[in-house]
Amino acid sequence: MPFKSFQVLFSSDKKFYQSLKKILGFYPTNISLYKKAFKHKSVVTENKNGIKDSNERMEYLGDAVFGAIVANFLFKKYLYKDEGFLSKMRSKMVSRNHLNKLAVKLGIDKLVEYQSDRFSKFKSVNGDAFEALIGAIYLDKGYKTTEDFVVHRLIKFHIDVDELENYDDDYKSKIINWAQKERKKLRFTIEEEIGNRHNKQYKVAVLIDDAVMGKGIGFSKKRAEQEAAEKACIDLKL
Amino acid sequence: MPFKSFQVLFSSDKKFYQSLKKILGFYPTNISLYKKAFKHKSVVTENKNGIKDSNERMEYLGDAVFGAIVANFLFKKYLYKDEGFLSKMRSKMVSRNHLNKLAVKLGIDKLVEYQSDRFSKFKSVNGDAFEALIGAIYLDKGYKTTEDFVVHRLIKFHIDVDELENYDDDYKSKIINWAQKERKKLRFTIEEEIGNRHNKQYKVAVLIDDAVMGKGIGFSKKRAEQEAAEKACIDLKL
Repeated sequence: MPFKSFQVLFSSDKKFYQSLKKILGFYPTNISLYKKAFKHKSVVTENKNGIKDSNERMEYLGDAVFGAIVANFLFKKYLYKDEGFLSKMRSKMVSRNHLNKLAVKLGIDKLVEYQSDRFSKFKSVNGDAFEALIGAIYLDKGYKTTEDFVVHRLIKFHIDVDELENYDDDYKSKIINWAQKERKKLRFTIEEEIGNRHNKQYKVAVLIDDAVMGKGIGFSKKRAEQEAAEKACIDLKL
Repeated sequence: MPFKSFQVLFSSDKKFYQSLKKILGFYPTNISLYKKAFKHKSVVTENKNGIKDSNERMEYLGDAVFGAIVANFLFKKYLYKDEGFLSKMRSKMVSRNHLNKLAVKLGIDKLVEYQSDRFSKFKSVNGDAFEALIGAIYLDKGYKTTEDFVVHRLIKFHIDVDELENYDDDYKSKIINWAQKERKKLRFTIEEEIGNRHNKQYKVAVLIDDAVMGKGIGFSKKRAEQEAAEKACIDLKL
C-alpha cells in the first residue's frame, strides 16, 4: 500500500475512504475529487469565482463519460442490432430513473450530502451523485479504469441488461397522465393504413391541443400509438 | 513502418490510406473500419443478419465518444464556468450544423460514399460520417488516441472554440422561418413582468398553434424571446 493511502487511513477520512473502496473495488488516489462528487448544490455556497463548488460540473462530465462507456459496451454486446436499438438501450441505462436506483444499490445515497429539508425538491440527487462519481473516477484514474469499473463491476453486478432489454416504458399511459395533469387536449388518430389485410401496418399520430407531437408506425394500433407517444414523451422530456 | 502498412500501400487502397493519414495524422491499423465509416446507408444493402452494413452503428458510437472527449476538454479549459455554460458549449461543438462544416474542413466530404440522386434527402451525410470516423478511430486505436486526435488536431487546427463561445444562434428567426414553412401559427406572449422598473425581467412564452412550446426569462423582451425560441427549437429538433 502506498504511503499516501496509509496516511489517509489514519485520518478522519478513514470511513469515507473505506466506503469508497467497497463501492469502487480500488483505492482512490485523490480523495478530494470523490468528496466533491457527493456534495449536492444544496450544501455549498458560491466560492470567490462565483461558482458553487458542488458536484454539478462533475455530473456534467460523468454523464458524458458514462454515456460513451455504455455506448461502447452495447456496441460490442449487440453485434447484430442497429443503431436505433442501441440508442434505445443506452437511453434506458442512463435514464435518471435507472441511475437513481443504481445509486441506491451502490450505497451512494448514504454518502451524498444534501440539505434534507430541501430534499423533496431534488428527486434525482442520488442519480446525479452517481454521474458525478463517474466524473471523479475519470479525473482521478483516467478512462480505462472508469471503463473497467463500469463494465466489470457496475454492469456485471448491478445492472440486468437483459431485463432492461425487455423492459418497455408505457409511453401512452405516461402521456395520457401528463395531459390530464396539464389540462391539455390529447388524442391519437390513425393517419394511414398501409398494406393489405394480411400484412397491415398502421400509421398513428398523437396530437396535443391539435398539434401533432409524434408519429408512429406498427403492425398493431397499440404498437403504433406507443411509438408515437414515445416520440412525444421525448420531445416533452417526460 | 510495419509490414501490414507496407502491404496496404501497394494495394488499391493506397489513395484512401494516404487521404486518411492526412486527416488523422497517423496511419490506421484496421483500414476496413474506416471504409465502413464512410459508407452512407444509401449505398449499402442488408446483410444476412438483416443489418445494413452502413456507418450508422459507428456513428452512434462516435457520437458518444466525441461527446465525452469534448465534455472533458471543456471541463478543463473552463475551470470557472458552471455546468450550464459547459453543456451549452458542448451542444454548439457537437451540433449537426457544426459537424457538417467540420467534416468539409477535414475533407471527409470527398471520401463519403452515398447515392447522389438521393443526396438531397441526407443533409447531414458529412457530419454523420465525421462521427462514424471518430467511432472508427476509437475501435481501431482506443480512447487515448481518439482523444489526442480530437484535442491536438481537430480542436487545435479546425475548431475556433472562442468564436463558438461568442456565437449565439438566432433561435427566434429560426423558429419563425420554420413556422412559415410549415404553415403553423406562431406567436410570442409576455406572460409576466417581474421586478420593478429599474430591474425588470420578462417572462415570455412561444406558442405554436396556441400550444406553449417554450418559455424564457430575460432582462429584455428580446433575450427572453430568444430563450423561449431556443427551447422550442430543441424540442422540435430544428
